[in-house]
Amino acid sequence: MTDFASTKALFHIPEGLIYLDGNSLGPLPLAAPARMAQAMTDEWGAMLITGWNRGGRDGTGWMGQPMALGDRVGRLIGAERGHVVLGDTLSIKVYQALTSALMLNPGRRVILSDNGNFPSDLYMAEGLCALLGQSYSLRVVAPEEVADAIDDSVAALMITEVDYRTGRRHDMAALTARAHALGAFAIWDLAHSAGALPVDVAAGGADFAVGCTYKYLNGGPGAPAFIYVAPRHADRTPPALSGWLGHAAPFAFDLTYRPGAGVERMRVGTPPVLALAALEASLDIWDSVDMAALRAASLALTDRFIAGVEAACPMLTLATPRDHAQRGSQVSFRFSEGYAAMQALIARGVVGDFRAPDIMRFGFTPLYIDAANVDRAVEIIAQVMGDRLWDQPEYRRRAAVT
Amino acid sequence: MTDFASTKALFHIPEGLIYLDGNSLGPLPLAAPARMAQAMTDEWGAMLITGWNRGGRDGTGWMGQPMALGDRVGRLIGAERGHVVLGDTLSIKVYQALTSALMLNPGRRVILSDNGNFPSDLYMAEGLCALLGQSYSLRVVAPEEVADAIDDSVAALMITEVDYRTGRRHDMAALTARAHALGAFAIWDLAHSAGALPVDVAAGGADFAVGCTYKYLNGGPGAPAFIYVAPRHADRTPPALSGWLGHAAPFAFDLTYRPGAGVERMRVGTPPVLALAALEASLDIWDSVDMAALRAASLALTDRFIAGVEAACPMLTLATPRDHAQRGSQVSFRFSEGYAAMQALIARGVVGDFRAPDIMRFGFTPLYIDAANVDRAVEIIAQVMGDRLWDQPEYRRRAAVT
Repeated sequence: MTDFASTKALFHIPEGLIYLDGNSLGPLPLAAPARMAQAMTDEWGAMLITGWNRGGRDGTGWMGQPMALGDRVGRLIGAERGHVVLGDTLSIKVYQALTSALMLNPGRRVILSDNGNFPSDLYMAEGLCALLGQSYSLRVVAPEEVADAIDDSVAALMITEVDYRTGRRHDMAALTARAHALGAFAIWDLAHSAGALPVDVAAGGADFAVGCTYKYLNGGPGAPAFIYVAPRHADRTPPALSGWLGHAAPFAFDLTYRPGAGVERMRVGTPPVLALAALEASLDIWDSVDMAALRAASLALTDRFIAGVEAACPMLTLATPRDHAQRGSQVSFRFSEGYAAMQALIARGVVGDFRAPDIMRFGFTPLYIDAANVDRAVEIIAQVMGDRLWDQPEYRRRAAVT
Repeated sequence: MTDFASTKALFHIPEGLIYLDGNSLGPLPLAAPARMAQAMTDEWGAMLITGWNRGGRDGTGWMGQPMALGDRVGRLIGAERGHVVLGDTLSIKVYQALTSALMLNPGRRVILSDNGNFPSDLYMAEGLCALLGQSYSLRVVAPEEVADAIDDSVAALMITEVDYRTGRRHDMAALTARAHALGAFAIWDLAHSAGALPVDVAAGGADFAVGCTYKYLNGGPGAPAFIYVAPRHADRTPPALSGWLGHAAPFAFDLTYRPGAGVERMRVGTPPVLALAALEASLDIWDSVDMAALRAASLALTDRFIAGVEAACPMLTLATPRDHAQRGSQVSFRFSEGYAAMQALIARGVVGDFRAPDIMRFGFTPLYIDAANVDRAVEIIAQVMGDRLWDQPEYRRRAAVT
């Protein structure tokens, strides 16, 4: 069983802050600056190009890091070894999964998603359909209508497992089974799942899964994304983004493309070496985390928070499912003055965030948030709501990034 | 006039090394580790999510860095202000330029390139054509045949200005004019141009230009790429990779995509904040470099190197044009045992690299390479070649990355 009191000591949480926004950007692992300094000075600085063969903390080369770290992320999402690779951004990984699914499922022209999906996933699908023309289209339904909306026109179901606004969790295994029964591929976005709860892409039958590492996985701002390709597809998936690092022999400099083995073909350009070094410092912590214990701790924290806030703040409406099976690792409340109320909270050290139009969102990350933090956060929220602090003009000014 | 003796002191060049591989991976700016430490600790660590609004060395927010740094790269390539943005990898930026050009030029189905282009560019075009079907195709000709191969079937000309193997430089203005006269778009890959020589994408008429920042621009391994979109296309280019950061209002979380203004629509996912911080330390040096002075110094170095090696090593055949107008900032020699000969050179502190099948490649970067380095490199090359050191078995073993 993971000792979460000891993991908390491995992160830098600024003095006086209750950081309930690790679902947006995870905090700095205390070991990350030293790992990064090493990558900068001892690897880039001293090794120069030989780093491609000799770099990385274990000396096996920068070139191997996207797959090596991919396996460490893979354990957290139930992937078979050797089937996850890191790189690019989540939007690019969504595009790769979509193009692969469409090419593997010719004759079907519909991408099905729901309006609780993260907008960038929808945008990437929209852009792809516009590029392809020929009546390719994106169909968007309500989250609870997804299962019934799958029909034999659907090439790919593209779903974010945990809704970024409400924290509502889809049933991966059930929806995937339904998609497969109707001949559709299932693409799962794990942005709010990886590191938030136990995921089992293998048992769940996912065809493709994608996610980012800067939220629960604490890889730092703009940390690389990941993609999982089910073993049954890995060697037959045509990579539309066929970059040289996904080539079977990148350094042969052939003029024509031959896809690399398995998920390696989902590599595109030169890997983000420095960003991978930062992520590694966080994965060092994750390697010893038991995901079942994490889930138990997460549910205890979110239950406690819901009970506390509901008792103290009747004007806040719970947007997150009470049913554990349907809940991620965040709690959201709807409130018409949510933006200003959140600014007032942040000014008092309780950092959550706001998602338009009216969602106040709080992430719970047992690695560094404990029951005492929850109780104190509830007290402060009760104060802000009781004193109607959202009415103060200083909290109503909008920042560029909310 | 830039004082290159003083810029040399701003880089970490390992003791005893003559680093002629800055055209593959630029060396570490001495100020980069401190800038990165600041980004890690003072920004990510202390600011957490508020870094999106407050981060960056100037405090204007991480979100603005891709455009702010884009302008600093833009000066080096002759771009109009506000028309260059950083992010992703070069392969992804090539794909963006290609999809934009194809969508802006409907009815034409051919991408024209040459066999001196970097393979990843060709692979990305190949993958795009396979995705699109409908007889879209990539046509690859010899570098000297490009001008004559442009015809009214060509939607986009995709050319790397300086050949990564030979250092041969295309005439951007002439080829672009020819492309335009025949109704084709011109996409220029500046991987071996940006920071290597003065580029003028605006005067040259380029429709799109892309490049990377880890070579001559010294941004570090896996540093972000850049894309330039000519002002005349910037607000009408449909972005096929329509990610949320390219949306007109990313934080409105609309369900449908509306492209952002100008080149901002070429942003895709969350920006690589840490990698941008490393790049910034190099751009601090570049900001005061006069590109005409750099070019004069570069040509003096490459002339000196060619003369020295040709006088001492008759078995090496120059692959780089003698004509200044056709030369980038590298010198390549063909030699059948080039791989082993290069390993012998590296073992003696002269770091160039090898590109299959027979190219020994040496990059010349006036920021940290001077005439004395060239003379010493020539001496060592003469020794290695005179002593036939490429015959020794220790130099014949191939590394994973060459």
